[in-house]
Amino acid sequence: MKVFQREHSLRTKGGLACVYSPHTTCCVRVNEFETGFLEDFVRMLRRIVPSEKYYAHDDWDRRTENVCPEDVEFANGHSHCMAMLLGPAGESIPVRDGELCLGTWQRVLFMELDRSRERRWIVQVVGD
Amino acid sequence: MKVFQREHSLRTKGGLACVYSPHTTCCVRVNEFETGFLEDFVRMLRRIVPSEKYYAHDDWDRRTENVCPEDVEFANGHSHCMAMLLGPAGESIPVRDGELCLGTWQRVLFMELDRSRERRWIVQVVGD
Amino acid sequence: MKVFQREHSLRTKGGLACVYSPHTTCCVRVNEFETGFLEDFVRMLRRIVPSEKYYAHDDWDRRTENVCPEDVEFANGHSHCMAMLLGPAGESIPVRDGELCLGTWQRVLFMELDRSRERRWIVQVVGD
Repeated sequence: MKVFQREHSLRTKGGLACVYSPHTTCCVRVNEFETGFLEDFVRMLRRIVPSEKYYAHDDWDRRTENVCPEDVEFANGHSHCMAMLLGPAGESIPVRDGELCLGTWQRVLFMELDRSRERRWIVQVVGD
Repeated sequence: MKVFQREHSLRTKGGLACVYSPHTTCCVRVNEFETGFLEDFVRMLRRIVPSEKYYAHDDWDRRTENVCPEDVEFANGHSHCMAMLLGPAGESIPVRDGELCLGTWQRVLFMELDRSRERRWIVQVVGD
Repeated sequence: MKVFQREHSLRTKGGLACVYSPHTTCCVRVNEFETGFLEDFVRMLRRIVPSEKYYAHDDWDRRTENVCPEDVEFANGHSHCMAMLLGPAGESIPVRDGELCLGTWQRVLFMELDRSRERRWIVQVVGD
C-alpha cells in the first residue's frame, strides 16, 4: 500500500469536489496523514483481508473472465476485496470559498492496495 | 447477495453522477465485474459479519422500534451491519463528455445484502 | 460511539446533498435508526477493530507527527482505523423536489468513533 497527498487549487467557489480513483484496487479516503496511523491501518487491513487466503479471482484453473497478463503474473484478489470493503472509489468533499472543507487533521489520501505502479486520479468539481 | 449491472446514458456533459440505493440492506459500489472476485467478496463479507451471531435487531423479545412484518419473518441484522461496514448507500462518479469516468475494469455494482427481492436504485446527475 | 439524527430543509429542488464530517474520528452514514441495530453495529465494529491492540498512532515512544495534547491524554488509534474502514467522511444523497431521497427506513447518522465531545458537520448542497 502506498499513501500520498497532493494539493489542489479550485476555481469553483462553492460546491462539491469528488476525488476519484479509476482503478479497481485503489481507493481515495480522507483521514489523518500520520505515519503511525498509516502503519496501523495497513496492519488492520492485512489482518481483516489476508492475502494468503484462497481467492477465486486468482485461480487460473477456473477463471475465464477479464483475463489480462498482469493478473496472471501478480495475484490481486485480496486487493479487490480490500477496495470493496473500504468503500467507494472516490470521496466527495464540500468546497466553500474556493477551498476544500477539510478539518484540521483531514488530508486526502490516495491508496494503492495492489503492488506499486503508475496510477492516476480524477478531481471533478461541481458548483458555482 | 446479488450483483448486477446496467448501462445508463447521460444528458449531462460534465458533472457528478450519484448512483444511490434507497434501501438499508443494499449497497452500490464500483469495482470489477468478475465472477471469481464476486465469490471472494461474498465469502469475505460472511466471514467478517457472520449471520449466525446474535443481533439485537432480530431479537423480538427486545425490539420495539420500526416493527414491520418482513423483519419478523426474515432476520436481517447482519445485512444492516454489512451495509454500514461497506460504506455509503451510493457512489458518486465523475461524468465527462456525457460519460461515467469508469476505469477499464470498473463497473457499477448494485448489491443486495439481504434476501433477493424487488429493488430500485436512483441515479442523480448534477453538472452542466 | 454516539449516533443521532437531525432534520434539514433544503432550498435546492434537484441535486445532491453531501452530509460531511470534518473530523478524522467521526463518520456520516445512512442506515436505519433502530436501537438494536446500532447496538449490533457497535459490537461488530469493536470486534473487528479492537481498541486493546497496539496502535503506533498512540505510541508516544515513537510518534513525532501531528502532536496534540488531546491525543496524548486519550489514545484514539483504533478510532481512526474504524473511520477509514467505514468509508468516506461524508455521504452524498440525491435531492428531488427539495427533499432528501431517503428510503422508508433510511436516516442520516452522524457517528462519533472516539470519546464523546462537541462536534460539527457540514451539509453542502449542489443543484438547481
